[in-house]
Amino acid sequence: MAWTKDTENYSLGKASISRKTIFMPIVLLTDFGHADGYAGILHGVIAKIAPEVRVIDLAHGVPPFDLLQANLILYRACPYFPKGSIFVVVVDPGVGGSRNPILVETDHHYFIGPDNGVFTLALSEQKVKNIFLLQDKKFFLTEISSTFHGRDIFAPAAAHLARGTAGKEFGPPLPDYLRLADLEPKQTGDRLSGKIISIDRFGNAVTNLKKSFLKRFFPDLKISASVAAVHRLPLRHTHYAEGKAGEALLLFGSSALLEIAVYQGSAAEKLDLKLGDEVEISAS
Amino acid sequence: MAWTKDTENYSLGKASISRKTIFMPIVLLTDFGHADGYAGILHGVIAKIAPEVRVIDLAHGVPPFDLLQANLILYRACPYFPKGSIFVVVVDPGVGGSRNPILVETDHHYFIGPDNGVFTLALSEQKVKNIFLLQDKKFFLTEISSTFHGRDIFAPAAAHLARGTAGKEFGPPLPDYLRLADLEPKQTGDRLSGKIISIDRFGNAVTNLKKSFLKRFFPDLKISASVAAVHRLPLRHTHYAEGKAGEALLLFGSSALLEIAVYQGSAAEKLDLKLGDEVEISAS
Amino acid sequence: MAWTKDTENYSLGKASISRKTIFMPIVLLTDFGHADGYAGILHGVIAKIAPEVRVIDLAHGVPPFDLLQANLILYRACPYFPKGSIFVVVVDPGVGGSRNPILVETDHHYFIGPDNGVFTLALSEQKVKNIFLLQDKKFFLTEISSTFHGRDIFAPAAAHLARGTAGKEFGPPLPDYLRLADLEPKQTGDRLSGKIISIDRFGNAVTNLKKSFLKRFFPDLKISASVAAVHRLPLRHTHYAEGKAGEALLLFGSSALLEIAVYQGSAAEKLDLKLGDEVEISAS
Repeated sequence: MAWTKDTENYSLGKASISRKTIFMPIVLLTDFGHADGYAGILHGVIAKIAPEVRVIDLAHGVPPFDLLQANLILYRACPYFPKGSIFVVVVDPGVGGSRNPILVETDHHYFIGPDNGVFTLALSEQKVKNIFLLQDKKFFLTEISSTFHGRDIFAPAAAHLARGTAGKEFGPPLPDYLRLADLEPKQTGDRLSGKIISIDRFGNAVTNLKKSFLKRFFPDLKISASVAAVHRLPLRHTHYAEGKAGEALLLFGSSALLEIAVYQGSAAEKLDLKLGDEVEISAS
Repeated sequence: MAWTKDTENYSLGKASISRKTIFMPIVLLTDFGHADGYAGILHGVIAKIAPEVRVIDLAHGVPPFDLLQANLILYRACPYFPKGSIFVVVVDPGVGGSRNPILVETDHHYFIGPDNGVFTLALSEQKVKNIFLLQDKKFFLTEISSTFHGRDIFAPAAAHLARGTAGKEFGPPLPDYLRLADLEPKQTGDRLSGKIISIDRFGNAVTNLKKSFLKRFFPDLKISASVAAVHRLPLRHTHYAEGKAGEALLLFGSSALLEIAVYQGSAAEKLDLKLGDEVEISAS
Repeated sequence: MAWTKDTENYSLGKASISRKTIFMPIVLLTDFGHADGYAGILHGVIAKIAPEVRVIDLAHGVPPFDLLQANLILYRACPYFPKGSIFVVVVDPGVGGSRNPILVETDHHYFIGPDNGVFTLALSEQKVKNIFLLQDKKFFLTEISSTFHGRDIFAPAAAHLARGTAGKEFGPPLPDYLRLADLEPKQTGDRLSGKIISIDRFGNAVTNLKKSFLKRFFPDLKISASVAAVHRLPLRHTHYAEGKAGEALLLFGSSALLEIAVYQGSAAEKLDLKLGDEVEISAS
């Protein structure tokens, strides 16, 4: 039961709550949206098997099949969730096909979902300890549809894991998991480049360029970015609010990824940025 | 207290959790969307009356007043929720008018909402035991608005039900509930037809044709569908991923309803499908 | 521990649940949307610090930076949440700038967020007891980003408050909080006017004209409204369903604010209404 917190015992006024009885949450990330009830069904499946386990919705608004965006959301979120949290990620364009359903155990968390690269960024920051194939049908629903493995395989597996089933009981170990090649920045000679992997609701364009990565090449971070081969922006700001209203800014966002923003405006609109646009880095 | 699970007692490592203290969830399905806080208010109302009861959001993105879509979501979800779950459905174009607020008890679940047909499909799969008028005002909020019965009547009633109030205490029994005629497939002579009752976020078009219904006429399920009088599709696939990218498929979806899909694409867009389009079935 | 309910002790069949162990909920209201996982991260942060505390999503679909809409949602919701609820509001155009992070304690609730006017309407209906600057960094996350104070400051502060930290421990008291001037109706001579501050998902246009305010001038509420200088509507209805389909109605909505509605239709579309449109009141 490694994922129950069992070292603390709080005294709360006259009532005493033992942390023993608090389970680590199951955290859902899907591209199901909010109109069809598919995300709610995952809650139902878990409540049937493990009614005492808390379920948190990380997000269900991932654009359909967008593995890049799902990667980014999971990467940003992981550090802020309790040790032992069980992430269930269902962005699964190949459902019913040949990709494996897997469970990944790291030094911090558990990850359940299709082995299609959706865990690439998040796992790059954690120490992977075990990978298991989700194979034993006694941990699935009785009938497995071909189109909704989130309901029939992933959610039930997460609920059983939360209640104490060990990873190895789900199926045989696997040697590795799939990585998305697309997420790595490129270094060619003295050329360093990344790209825009997400545009958020505020119009901020987030790149795949980590602060730690850029520091290896430019220890003082005196850099400029050429964005979409059109806009040249120096890295000078650390706060949105340092800019003038409407001004384009280059800065590290809240997850230490380089991003392009406009103070109180939309960078995507103002600079006409799109997913996949190249961001080339040079000394400034 | 039929809806607390009181037959199981789990030993979880050193901690023991009695299922006695776990209440069956209240499950919310509305057309409130996520921008106005109306769905959140239902949570507040329930937390005031029954703070120990878990509340699950099935979906709040039903298109405004869309009784067909609400029917489908509820029908799909019910089998995956624990026995004793209390479904509160607020899709209520006639709020403030003459439709009755009702509670329906079945062999599996409780249903609370307006008697406007919204439960038709879900109840067709369950054994209805009792129907009660929600009448006794002591189970409502003190002030009943004319426009927000979800907050003032349905959520408080659900919270009281979850805490142990018996169905008959809410009001007199009713002989029946309203059914939506629109949801039944049509059989005219040797002609069998249904229609598209939902298009989901992935562009899959779901019909009102159940697998069990079609099997009565075509036991081997060797059928074709003529969709919107234009596209003729044979039933050949069981998995989205069996198709070629971009190919239109006819298959039974994850709730055993016939649907039209396009592998890794949108059937609605590619085939120009709309809600209400006719789907005519013939032997293939 | 003022915000635990400690006066009730329910006997539930054979199980006894002491209300002592039930914490008042943390309630989240943000403009984060549902596509980026930012709202989910707040849940993670709170689960790490206070895993036994329930977190309710009031709404995350506030339009980006829309302080007016956030005001309205919070104002409408407050009366329906338990005493002691902790509202965390993150609609924060000035994040990283000079506005203060604050905690407001009233006779009913706690409010945590930026001091940018977002609490104006809600606090106008409650008795403010204390205002504190959120200053002591031991209640924040270790690293404070410049762009995501919801995660780094507001959510952790709420979690600590829920677990028993007193308001004064967070920082020094403040004399007042910021109010949005824009939210007050105008009275000039015998002219009384307000404006449309929200258009909801059903197309209902909500004004800033409270029933209690209008009664001071028109005790019998025999009034008409001139909307956007074009439409003249008498106050005659109390129920949407009293109207004919498609008819424009003037009525008090579910939170006693004057609103313009169309029965089974969208008033915003039919009357071409926009946020900020003036609504002038006269005797009818």
